[in-house]
Amino acid sequence: MNYLMLSVGRRGELMKDFRASMEEGSTIIATDNSPYAPALYFADKQYIVPRIDAPEYIATLLEICQKEQINAVTTVIDPEIMLLAENRERFAEIGVEVLAPYTETAKLCFDKYEMFKYLRSCGVRTAMTWGTFDEVKAALDVGEAELPVFVKPRTGSGSVGARKVFDLETLHAAFEQDPSLIAQELMTGEGCFDLDADVYVDTISHKPVSIFSKRKISTTIGGANKTISFKDEKLFSFAQEALSHFKFNGPIDADFFYKNGEYYLSEVNPRFGGAYLHAYGAGVDFIKLIERNLHGEENKIEIGNYEEGVVMMMYDSVVIKKETELAE
Amino acid sequence: MNYLMLSVGRRGELMKDFRASMEEGSTIIATDNSPYAPALYFADKQYIVPRIDAPEYIATLLEICQKEQINAVTTVIDPEIMLLAENRERFAEIGVEVLAPYTETAKLCFDKYEMFKYLRSCGVRTAMTWGTFDEVKAALDVGEAELPVFVKPRTGSGSVGARKVFDLETLHAAFEQDPSLIAQELMTGEGCFDLDADVYVDTISHKPVSIFSKRKISTTIGGANKTISFKDEKLFSFAQEALSHFKFNGPIDADFFYKNGEYYLSEVNPRFGGAYLHAYGAGVDFIKLIERNLHGEENKIEIGNYEEGVVMMMYDSVVIKKETELAE
Repeated sequence: MNYLMLSVGRRGELMKDFRASMEEGSTIIATDNSPYAPALYFADKQYIVPRIDAPEYIATLLEICQKEQINAVTTVIDPEIMLLAENRERFAEIGVEVLAPYTETAKLCFDKYEMFKYLRSCGVRTAMTWGTFDEVKAALDVGEAELPVFVKPRTGSGSVGARKVFDLETLHAAFEQDPSLIAQELMTGEGCFDLDADVYVDTISHKPVSIFSKRKISTTIGGANKTISFKDEKLFSFAQEALSHFKFNGPIDADFFYKNGEYYLSEVNPRFGGAYLHAYGAGVDFIKLIERNLHGEENKIEIGNYEEGVVMMMYDSVVIKKETELAE
Repeated sequence: MNYLMLSVGRRGELMKDFRASMEEGSTIIATDNSPYAPALYFADKQYIVPRIDAPEYIATLLEICQKEQINAVTTVIDPEIMLLAENRERFAEIGVEVLAPYTETAKLCFDKYEMFKYLRSCGVRTAMTWGTFDEVKAALDVGEAELPVFVKPRTGSGSVGARKVFDLETLHAAFEQDPSLIAQELMTGEGCFDLDADVYVDTISHKPVSIFSKRKISTTIGGANKTISFKDEKLFSFAQEALSHFKFNGPIDADFFYKNGEYYLSEVNPRFGGAYLHAYGAGVDFIKLIERNLHGEENKIEIGNYEEGVVMMMYDSVVIKKETELAE
């Protein structure tokens, strides 16, 4: 099989894990907008491509797919997911499987408030979320919300721009300044933690067939980036049910909260997550699942097929190249 | 030779480069306060030790040195440098070379204002620095300073806590809140850049015998952490002269400014710098220099013995271990 991995950036370790698992005769081609993206240099071949918002971007990708006889394409950056979803047919026409969610699902993953409303309508537990200052204010007035709340950008991934707001005045000012914000109930404190799961959603059945969950190790020494694998049937059932309301396609990274004995879906990054390295190190192999799908076979559901208590610790590695050896 | 590397933290790649260069029969032992320090797991053996401020800390290290027949000890974290310097004799008594500066030099490296005054007294170019609000105010009044200035903590490494201050009122408030601050003239803008050099100071001659210099690649794509090696005889001469006023001992990481055609010494982190990986990747090998010193031989001065235009790109790598395999 030939794979095209887009916008690889710093994801060198993912490239290595990918290659280590590919069946014989496979190749992995990487793209980035910059020749200084270290992960490029772990691919069999690399292309420097235009920015993802360039008009000729998709055409460039399709050309690479044809030239390299690509079987599947995926991206590791969020802004590119919708683009892939929207162009699924164009890739399909030349025999390329797009490992990205279908458009409606991609849209929901991109907008935290739309996601909240959708999850609510499906009866999936999620953190209470408000889309305007007036909404939070009304909820506060009737005792359905309490301060502090979390305020974050409606779009964008992870905790970028997220902050706690302690009083009404600051909250008002925040929404005045950026009406696209959302406010969310706090899911922190005693008995709460957040966790995430690497999930593979079969491209034939569209069901989660593999789930790997891990959480942060609470150590004040040496900062974050230390995680440990765990298993909980309750989480697995919740995740399977929650994710059944979407049409994902391939690897996703789902974030959850645990609060007072219950799991809540937080958000979904529908792509290989940073934690996949942990999953792989604990014996979970999405590449084999992708391969089986590409061969037209549906994967069996094998959830929780990994070891508990496996620790992942991050550190900085480097790629060294002569300037003359950089991709052009 | 047997090496003891202290507080290794996330410096896994340094451990790998170290091991790749050690002469046959050498071992490298690593310590950290936490079993979750990934770099521990690249050592031949690892010890979990008390915090560096624990009263029994040095005794613990001396015990490890004796047990493991250590020939040289060094640290990769700043707060431990003074500790090693002050205990040089105790290590020397049991035959251990301390790869850290002598006490007076260690003190200067730790305090940016003392360093400034010392460099001034030696006639070494450095950024103009003021130790109190009144000093900056006086300089502003007579036109010897101009706003904005850089404000940063007197101690501490790198750019932690550094910020530009644009007006007198904010400057006053900053010094009121934290009288240990310093203010520094801006060394940014047109024709300015900062750079750093990995320098090996011979433990016998106490002269710099190897200098590797690199600077940031100015690319807005994908953030920082992309550097390129370069050579400039003018920098090499300036660094040799500037560093001759100190008593370093082993690897150091010196930061410089370049402004209007001249080099300025900014600060020195007297330990293996993060950039050593770059130096090593470009053909500079401090481990060989350390070995020669430990064998009682002085190293020849071989400055600039590396390739220009070598690019280093950082990415995240991981160590995966079962909980039961962690160091105790």
